[in-house]
Amino acid sequence: MSADPRSRFDRRRDTEHRLTNDADVWVATASVNGAPHLVPLSFHWDGEKLLFATPTNSPTARNLAATRAVRLGLGHTRDVSMIDGDVEVFDDDALPQELRDGYVGRTGWDPGGEATPYRWFLVSPRRIQAWREVNELPDRELMRDGQWSVPSPTE
Amino acid sequence: MSADPRSRFDRRRDTEHRLTNDADVWVATASVNGAPHLVPLSFHWDGEKLLFATPTNSPTARNLAATRAVRLGLGHTRDVSMIDGDVEVFDDDALPQELRDGYVGRTGWDPGGEATPYRWFLVSPRRIQAWREVNELPDRELMRDGQWSVPSPTE
Repeated sequence: MSADPRSRFDRRRDTEHRLTNDADVWVATASVNGAPHLVPLSFHWDGEKLLFATPTNSPTARNLAATRAVRLGLGHTRDVSMIDGDVEVFDDDALPQELRDGYVGRTGWDPGGEATPYRWFLVSPRRIQAWREVNELPDRELMRDGQWSVPSPTE
Repeated sequence: MSADPRSRFDRRRDTEHRLTNDADVWVATASVNGAPHLVPLSFHWDGEKLLFATPTNSPTARNLAATRAVRLGLGHTRDVSMIDGDVEVFDDDALPQELRDGYVGRTGWDPGGEATPYRWFLVSPRRIQAWREVNELPDRELMRDGQWSVPSPTE
């Protein structure tokens, strides 16, 4: 038996809680010719955009440099927030210091200190959905065209 | 602090346990022109192949019909088994009965009974990897070219 479906307001609150507190996110990318890739990565959320880093020569980094398109999954399979986003790419020496500080503060790790070259990827959410069970599939869309369609819990 | 890395033998045992017992899997696909998609879906494992169903007109079904390529993620972000696979597609009336019985037995649900048309997707694993933390990134490959490179725990 499922619980009653959450309101869209509650789903935004739960999604922002995950963005602010979770350690990792599932990162789905695609090559230009349609090969899917998926890995879990640590991330930082600055309130509007999501930042992660991965080795420059990894499939994820190569896919994102070519397509600039990502789909992210937060949470577990029966309590998810899905984010489709547009991606900006930064070489390590071009990342704004404030973003690096946020990431290092959140994860306790600076990829710029690794021997392997890393690149940084900053995701602007375009669409966000959240659902737990089948009864939450209606009303799952919380953001469209980069704009929340639900008021902020703090407003 | 991380635990000691598991042996590849233990990782195969843990991966097969997830394939046999987990309720859902993360399914990453790509459109032919490089748009990634990701959703959690229920599945069945028959010992060699993984079966799931999704509406015929969903992004996942359309991507798989076009590319026949999938990457699956089992588990949580700090304890994952990743499967790259080749995909066979079945219309509902063409699915072998034994596979349907296995899926319905595992999930308690027959997509063939829905008003929305569903298609079935049978994944033959080509590569399987499993890791928890950074110290398990070496030795993460358990299957290559469709062949386990670790003995079965039951052998």
